[in-house]
Amino acid sequence: MTHEAAVRLPIERLAEFSARVLEHAGVAQADARQAADVLAASDLRGIDSHGVARLSMYYNMLAKGRINPRPAIRVVRETPSTATVDGDNGLGLVVGPWANALAMDKAEQVGSGWVAVRHTNHYGIAGYYPLQALRRDLIGWAMTNATKLVAPLWSAERMLGTNPIAIAFPGKEEPPIVIDMATSAVAYGKLEIAIRGGKPIPEGWGVDRDGRPATHAQQVIDGGAMLPLGGDRERGGHKGYALAAMVDILCGILPGANWGPFAPPFALQQDVPTRKVGMGIGHFFGALKIDGFIDLDEFKQEIDEWVRVFRAARPAAGTNGPLIPGDPEREAEAARARLGVPLPHAVYADLLELSRVTGIPLE
Amino acid sequence: MTHEAAVRLPIERLAEFSARVLEHAGVAQADARQAADVLAASDLRGIDSHGVARLSMYYNMLAKGRINPRPAIRVVRETPSTATVDGDNGLGLVVGPWANALAMDKAEQVGSGWVAVRHTNHYGIAGYYPLQALRRDLIGWAMTNATKLVAPLWSAERMLGTNPIAIAFPGKEEPPIVIDMATSAVAYGKLEIAIRGGKPIPEGWGVDRDGRPATHAQQVIDGGAMLPLGGDRERGGHKGYALAAMVDILCGILPGANWGPFAPPFALQQDVPTRKVGMGIGHFFGALKIDGFIDLDEFKQEIDEWVRVFRAARPAAGTNGPLIPGDPEREAEAARARLGVPLPHAVYADLLELSRVTGIPLE
Repeated sequence: MTHEAAVRLPIERLAEFSARVLEHAGVAQADARQAADVLAASDLRGIDSHGVARLSMYYNMLAKGRINPRPAIRVVRETPSTATVDGDNGLGLVVGPWANALAMDKAEQVGSGWVAVRHTNHYGIAGYYPLQALRRDLIGWAMTNATKLVAPLWSAERMLGTNPIAIAFPGKEEPPIVIDMATSAVAYGKLEIAIRGGKPIPEGWGVDRDGRPATHAQQVIDGGAMLPLGGDRERGGHKGYALAAMVDILCGILPGANWGPFAPPFALQQDVPTRKVGMGIGHFFGALKIDGFIDLDEFKQEIDEWVRVFRAARPAAGTNGPLIPGDPEREAEAARARLGVPLPHAVYADLLELSRVTGIPLE
Repeated sequence: MTHEAAVRLPIERLAEFSARVLEHAGVAQADARQAADVLAASDLRGIDSHGVARLSMYYNMLAKGRINPRPAIRVVRETPSTATVDGDNGLGLVVGPWANALAMDKAEQVGSGWVAVRHTNHYGIAGYYPLQALRRDLIGWAMTNATKLVAPLWSAERMLGTNPIAIAFPGKEEPPIVIDMATSAVAYGKLEIAIRGGKPIPEGWGVDRDGRPATHAQQVIDGGAMLPLGGDRERGGHKGYALAAMVDILCGILPGANWGPFAPPFALQQDVPTRKVGMGIGHFFGALKIDGFIDLDEFKQEIDEWVRVFRAARPAAGTNGPLIPGDPEREAEAARARLGVPLPHAVYADLLELSRVTGIPLE
């Protein structure tokens, strides 16, 4: 979205504004700062769809009482290395970091920690959570289910969310390897870009309402569905579907959250499913203590070597060679930390409106 | 391969033959039976490439001293919920079940168990391991790295194995959900079939030696590479690459095994990489105690409901609707348990030759 940017704002400004807006909606100060930190990580890393672009949605969900601003987050079941957490319908941006910290604590105590979360809401970028684990020299893992957008292979119906998987590995001198990927073939934002550009979409991105390959994004939006990673059967669409199912079960069924098509939507304007099979949406966090397996320093040095070996792999014709997972976000972060975060007109207008409503200055 | 079947043999016969052949090669009786059980699971579930079709390769690797028939498998590092295991260059079919059992024991004790394994060899189908976990009402997870076949997105070079991920979830009245998938776009066997059939391959399966899209499987085999799940950038090939990288790091770097292009090959005729960065190949096993998160019965009932809801999803035009992960293997298992395992001419000839060499009767 950067090509449409209206203004650039420093990330500190955006984080401060976000925290104050959430506090204005009733969120406790420390929680509001935590939530703003998750949003800022997204904006900083170039994932424009998951940062301040969504602040007004969070604000409205809080204002309408659809999200609980003062959740009593609690552990409902526990073993030395696992727990189920009830988020009390709080912001996922608050419940997620709480549960992730519990997973990390357990990893430090008994080697690994795995925390499934129910009764929570959208938690921002999945990549935020393993990045926290890196600070504690842990391998962190995060997944979440989400409102339905994706059809299982051979169905015409939206049954699964874009259900992301994130994991990160620390290097010593090289930057960490950071994986953060939806299990759908593409992000929803790519469909919006195709519509704005008036361009057809490639086969493998989505289907129309009858489950036939969609050639235009509008067919996907008008009652069609996105396709799982792999697209059709020939290219492995059953694998993307299986990954999305794995995420849905670990995040939905394991903690007792809503799963599959019953996951409640993020935005106010979407219909809430009439059937409930659990509480809220669900997340799943994991953390592994590296020196429970191998010397930490040896691991990090070997990650460095992995990064170097893969960067040196012979490039495909017409390319600059392979990237390391996390490279694009790292580049965005470097640029945005220096130049500020570019805000598209629509997002900027949205923030100005929030500023007007709350009386909190944006700039 | 079933259309070329020369004979059908009962699974018990194949398992007995496999065990005796491995024993003949020096493997202890209990280990030989364990290894034969892994191979039989593959043949029974219709994954013909990973069962007795490979018995002569295992036999030859043992006979030439490339695999240790009597490994002293040991834990080299441990926490309550994790361990690193050294397989002492034993059969992966023996080391894998040993390490998987350790992960399951830990899960029963402290809620979860995670075991990384180095100095091991090919371990059969990844799906075997979570199937074992199902018997103990655990969620099981298995990954392995393997000899290089797959190029990272934007590289022309083979750098990663087909690095599978398997996980399974138990149902109550419905069959379990069993995911077992390579992180490459397709299995290597599909390229062989395309060559035999003289047919072109779809874009997204592989690249030629310059990293350009391969239109014929022979280009992939002649110095090209397979593509990760997703294929090209537009369809998410960077995601399949990231998943393969995740598997490679957890299985390779975490336990101190060889990773990436340095993973040693499975078969005798392939070149062994000159550079060593660890010991053998690596696996990674996980197990989660379900009732550490939620009542076991509630979980199983909800899995049943998931299965029913997804089976009832509206079919795409021209299809019978979505499958549940594990359906094709379950169907194969039912048929083969009744009718025997169909063996292609080449595999049958291979087994007859093994029978001749070892003096162990096949039928």
